[in-house]
Amino acid sequence: MSEKKQSTPVTSAEAEVSSGQALSSLVWKGDRLSMLDQRLLPETIVMLDLFTAEEVWDGIHTMKVRGAPAIGMAAAYGVVLGASAYSNEDAAGWLEHVHGVCGYLATSRPTAVNLFWALDRMKKRAGELIAEAGGGLVEDWNAGLEREAIAIQAEDEEVCRQIGIHALPLFEDGMGVLTHCNAGGLATAKYGTALAPMYLAQENGIHLKVFADETRPVLQGARLTAFELQQAGIDVTLLCDNMAGMVMSKGWVQAVIVGTDRVAANGDVANKIGTYSLAVLAKAHGIPFYVASPLSTIDLQTATGADIPIEERSAEEVTESFGKRTAPQGIKVYNPAFDITPHEYITAIITEKGIVQAPFNDSLTALFAD
Amino acid sequence: MSEKKQSTPVTSAEAEVSSGQALSSLVWKGDRLSMLDQRLLPETIVMLDLFTAEEVWDGIHTMKVRGAPAIGMAAAYGVVLGASAYSNEDAAGWLEHVHGVCGYLATSRPTAVNLFWALDRMKKRAGELIAEAGGGLVEDWNAGLEREAIAIQAEDEEVCRQIGIHALPLFEDGMGVLTHCNAGGLATAKYGTALAPMYLAQENGIHLKVFADETRPVLQGARLTAFELQQAGIDVTLLCDNMAGMVMSKGWVQAVIVGTDRVAANGDVANKIGTYSLAVLAKAHGIPFYVASPLSTIDLQTATGADIPIEERSAEEVTESFGKRTAPQGIKVYNPAFDITPHEYITAIITEKGIVQAPFNDSLTALFAD
Repeated sequence: MSEKKQSTPVTSAEAEVSSGQALSSLVWKGDRLSMLDQRLLPETIVMLDLFTAEEVWDGIHTMKVRGAPAIGMAAAYGVVLGASAYSNEDAAGWLEHVHGVCGYLATSRPTAVNLFWALDRMKKRAGELIAEAGGGLVEDWNAGLEREAIAIQAEDEEVCRQIGIHALPLFEDGMGVLTHCNAGGLATAKYGTALAPMYLAQENGIHLKVFADETRPVLQGARLTAFELQQAGIDVTLLCDNMAGMVMSKGWVQAVIVGTDRVAANGDVANKIGTYSLAVLAKAHGIPFYVASPLSTIDLQTATGADIPIEERSAEEVTESFGKRTAPQGIKVYNPAFDITPHEYITAIITEKGIVQAPFNDSLTALFAD
Repeated sequence: MSEKKQSTPVTSAEAEVSSGQALSSLVWKGDRLSMLDQRLLPETIVMLDLFTAEEVWDGIHTMKVRGAPAIGMAAAYGVVLGASAYSNEDAAGWLEHVHGVCGYLATSRPTAVNLFWALDRMKKRAGELIAEAGGGLVEDWNAGLEREAIAIQAEDEEVCRQIGIHALPLFEDGMGVLTHCNAGGLATAKYGTALAPMYLAQENGIHLKVFADETRPVLQGARLTAFELQQAGIDVTLLCDNMAGMVMSKGWVQAVIVGTDRVAANGDVANKIGTYSLAVLAKAHGIPFYVASPLSTIDLQTATGADIPIEERSAEEVTESFGKRTAPQGIKVYNPAFDITPHEYITAIITEKGIVQAPFNDSLTALFAD
């Protein structure tokens, strides 16, 4: 869809990290999307310049960008880049082209509903632009899509801030909070979902003691959550995933809070593999289990968790993901990227419109009815 | 205690792996202990020749040898090597020297009770040798210690076989069995404890489907359990630790079986970190949770799990154990090597003398009374 097929790895000056300064996973540059390669964190900070929808597809598929909201934002910019390759002044042809780009980007990963949400929003906006313009110029239509993608990113930051604000009453000074994977600023425009309460708590002088599961196999907790909280000056201790039960049994954890890749209508939650085990452990220890979710991650069209497709990833993520083979050749591996936490394990879901509890079929529907 | 301070890494012909042929973690060579460096498995097979008690201490401390029974055996050979450095024909001096070597080796690791059990047995035997000889020659006393260490190893193989035989009625053809860490042939003289039922099942034509937790941070499950079961032709699937809950929820697991580093008098079990989380998950899914333990690992002198010291290991095991740094510099890490599983989570303890159930205070005491 463009002649520029090669992305250009550059170590951007903007990407330099200094304590307290947030690193952005996605920076729109007008003609290209600058994407932080999160796979290389925390040792190496590289911003990749992506000029085509194919490059964005690859960035999502290979998890250079990850985190449900960030995936949605990246896809929206992917639509902008893909659309810009169409230059005919033909409204119907342009619309068909945009739909094609959206369909293509939808194949990049299967589980995160924000991906489909963002693509649907871009398709809808494309239709409106044609209807509003009543003809007009292709460059105006493309500019309209660009404004929509920028709006998605700006709204995400505000959504995350609101999640953090709504969560604040759940946390007290000195509390231990355990999180899994990375639902932080790197997974979103800013603040994150599960980490937003920690950032907002810090802004409000509340000190939390955060435990971060390293989150095998890709170690988003070790590489991203520990990194961004440490950068922000928040008290964080890194754990292997299998230590969470012991830490809970010691009484060090008063709340678990995680992000999500999709919430079903009944409140079942898809999130990074290991979330379900944590929820069972939290229940056994009488610890509240919270899910931080923007409305864009709640999918009322999906009835239950059983209807959410679970992506299985390659054996190599488990057997040689650290640049060194750590399991025998030819070994069978089961490597699901996500699991489903049934709604009965979830104390509450924290959204930008407030905190909702069971029965989730009713409370989630009510959120959208407002 | 000896002039030979350097161990000599050799790739031993005996260490060559062929399918179906077991690899031994410890081979006594008369004047030295040949120790498999388990840290390098599965990619590299190196047998280290250890000539001194100090080298054995280091092998245990740095986890070149691991697994509670194997640690005990290594320590017993360490006593033989340490004793051989004493050449005076002075019974009292020799005995004091042997006690000194035992005290020194006891500091190599804190949790595995087999270490202390084996050292106590060697001390006791040393005393008997002096008493029996009523004088005699130091070379006879040293030869007596050597026979005792060899007996410990031979008995361990038979103990493991008996554990496997006693466990057989618990397993049916086609069952899914989940295990954690490595309590296999590499952790013992042969067969292992938790893996003995799988080997004995195979010898008896019963096919089990084994799920092996990779077991962070040192990956004994990926590197050792997956390796030795694959070598033996047993159906094994490797998982990240955080996937166990999902696999249980899918109905793929009908039993969990683990080894142990120490069983307290009330049935509380110290085992590799993550065991407690697994036990909670097994209970939540109605899956029986079995602990395979030789009598030498049961410590009636330790009243409860709260009395078992838990070794904490270095942050680097978590942050850079794969030869590549995977967490930010300076991050706080909590890295306990073991956790305690309270007895109420344990369905049964499988020993070489049979299977015992709650109340464990009574049933464990009865085992020793026989």
